[in-house]
Amino acid sequence: MTGILPSWRHTATRSTILDFVERVAGDGPGAVPAEERIAVFDNDGTLWTEKPMPTQLHYLVQRWAAAAKADPSLAEKQPYTAVATGDLSWLGAAVDKHYAGDDSDLHAVVGAVIAATENESVEDYAASVAEFYRDALHPVLERTYSGVVYQPMVELLAYLEANGFTCYIVSGGDRDFMRPMTVDNYGIPPERVIGSAVGLVYDAETNDVHYGASFDFLADGPVKPVRIWTRIGRRPIFAAGNSNGDLPMLRYATGSANSLSLLVHHDDDTGRGDTPYDKGAESALDAASSAASGITVVSVKDDWSVVFPDAAEPGAGA
Amino acid sequence: MTGILPSWRHTATRSTILDFVERVAGDGPGAVPAEERIAVFDNDGTLWTEKPMPTQLHYLVQRWAAAAKADPSLAEKQPYTAVATGDLSWLGAAVDKHYAGDDSDLHAVVGAVIAATENESVEDYAASVAEFYRDALHPVLERTYSGVVYQPMVELLAYLEANGFTCYIVSGGDRDFMRPMTVDNYGIPPERVIGSAVGLVYDAETNDVHYGASFDFLADGPVKPVRIWTRIGRRPIFAAGNSNGDLPMLRYATGSANSLSLLVHHDDDTGRGDTPYDKGAESALDAASSAASGITVVSVKDDWSVVFPDAAEPGAGA
Repeated sequence: MTGILPSWRHTATRSTILDFVERVAGDGPGAVPAEERIAVFDNDGTLWTEKPMPTQLHYLVQRWAAAAKADPSLAEKQPYTAVATGDLSWLGAAVDKHYAGDDSDLHAVVGAVIAATENESVEDYAASVAEFYRDALHPVLERTYSGVVYQPMVELLAYLEANGFTCYIVSGGDRDFMRPMTVDNYGIPPERVIGSAVGLVYDAETNDVHYGASFDFLADGPVKPVRIWTRIGRRPIFAAGNSNGDLPMLRYATGSANSLSLLVHHDDDTGRGDTPYDKGAESALDAASSAASGITVVSVKDDWSVVFPDAAEPGAGA
Repeated sequence: MTGILPSWRHTATRSTILDFVERVAGDGPGAVPAEERIAVFDNDGTLWTEKPMPTQLHYLVQRWAAAAKADPSLAEKQPYTAVATGDLSWLGAAVDKHYAGDDSDLHAVVGAVIAATENESVEDYAASVAEFYRDALHPVLERTYSGVVYQPMVELLAYLEANGFTCYIVSGGDRDFMRPMTVDNYGIPPERVIGSAVGLVYDAETNDVHYGASFDFLADGPVKPVRIWTRIGRRPIFAAGNSNGDLPMLRYATGSANSLSLLVHHDDDTGRGDTPYDKGAESALDAASSAASGITVVSVKDDWSVVFPDAAEPGAGA
């Protein structure tokens, strides 16, 4: 695989990307100064697989199981019951209810998320997460999570950086859960990782920053443009996402005079961890179907020749 | 003025800085990888003058005066009364009370800070602030604010960057009030400006981010290490400040194996805008007086040969 974006098929989508990058990084009328070439990428479902469950949930299930083992009384309440019994369907239902506007079960999930790291220093958490990334295997693909990144998107990150862009991750996932793997997987350093966060506390006695007892914010939906301004102080000219929660960020980027927003549509049938799915992307796909939206849909099936690193063609042998 | 840190006298302080930088940027036992060479600087009183009042207050006074002119009923309450009558002593007293632990008047100040930008887009605010920096003159030095930066600290920023450091501002001042001037004054881009913030809102209808009706956080004291982790995701190895509110940040940096923390002490008598002052720096100076603190005090009088760009020697002709 050589040349520009080798894992992208020679489709109209690839031409749209190349035309955009050549225009803004060139010296013609659509040129954009390098310092304004800001690109933002969602993570789960955009830069790596989020099926059968987000990587962070895999990690949390391990921590919650360890907590329930240490304190069996925890197993009497959710989400520890689900974890202790091995039936995670309650968790999936809690998330489904959230997207349907009912957060009644999500509160228990958030409470357990906070409890998992309360009073833990940021360095200790980073070490625990790094160990997970070294050892844990994706439940379907049976490889470490560095092997479930989307090869075409990793190439796109590198292509943009080679053309003077500065790339950021803007994810609804936990910021500090991503930071220990983003340099190795994507070439993105911790200061360019934006995500959700538990509140932090500075402890003068230990001279450490640790996690507190409150949730700070969920970096999803309309909070994504807010976090982009907070962290970067510029409006991006490129954005990529895959779900409804990315739509405000995709639209925010289209507010720049020269911009490109991509919506990754999981319409492939690789049988390798992702299966075709639109769930959670309905309104984003609907918005992108209008040419006036300025959002370009990426078809995994048609636009990518490879999904994962060193993986077979989509569909081939599946 | 040529060579390294030309506006620093050849004192022990300058040697401490040079020894530190040569050690961490070298290849000996104290070497630190470039990506971990994170330096954080307070702004007001550290990178530029904060006397007779912080620059941001100058700007706010102008906006509050315009608001009171448009709506005279505002002048019946503080801080608009102070601004309308031209007697700003109430404001100074409100800040003094805050540092004495009494926030009764600070609430009115914060309310007026929020009211000043409520519903304004971040881009409109940036344009308003940029106009202020173009036109406003420092009340004592009678030059634009680009002329009241501390020349030795600007040289220190450049020296650190030349040695592979990445420098950030971490100020109690408003983040978005600093961003429009930090590239020109310090060579620091907006994504590396950390400061206090009013809450932001994404407006789907206008596709803009604007300021909301709540204060988000004051990035002072123990909040500085928290904001550093949030934004950077690393513990700095260098920190510089000048007041009690910087002490947690200075201490946080000393938690790195190879580190340097500087406390700028305004003991000079330039008569050029700064006068000798310890107020608000008492506990920081006290902490730094212990060698075990790991904090090095910078004497403006003894360690700097020049304070402002193109300015006379401290004391000379004052």
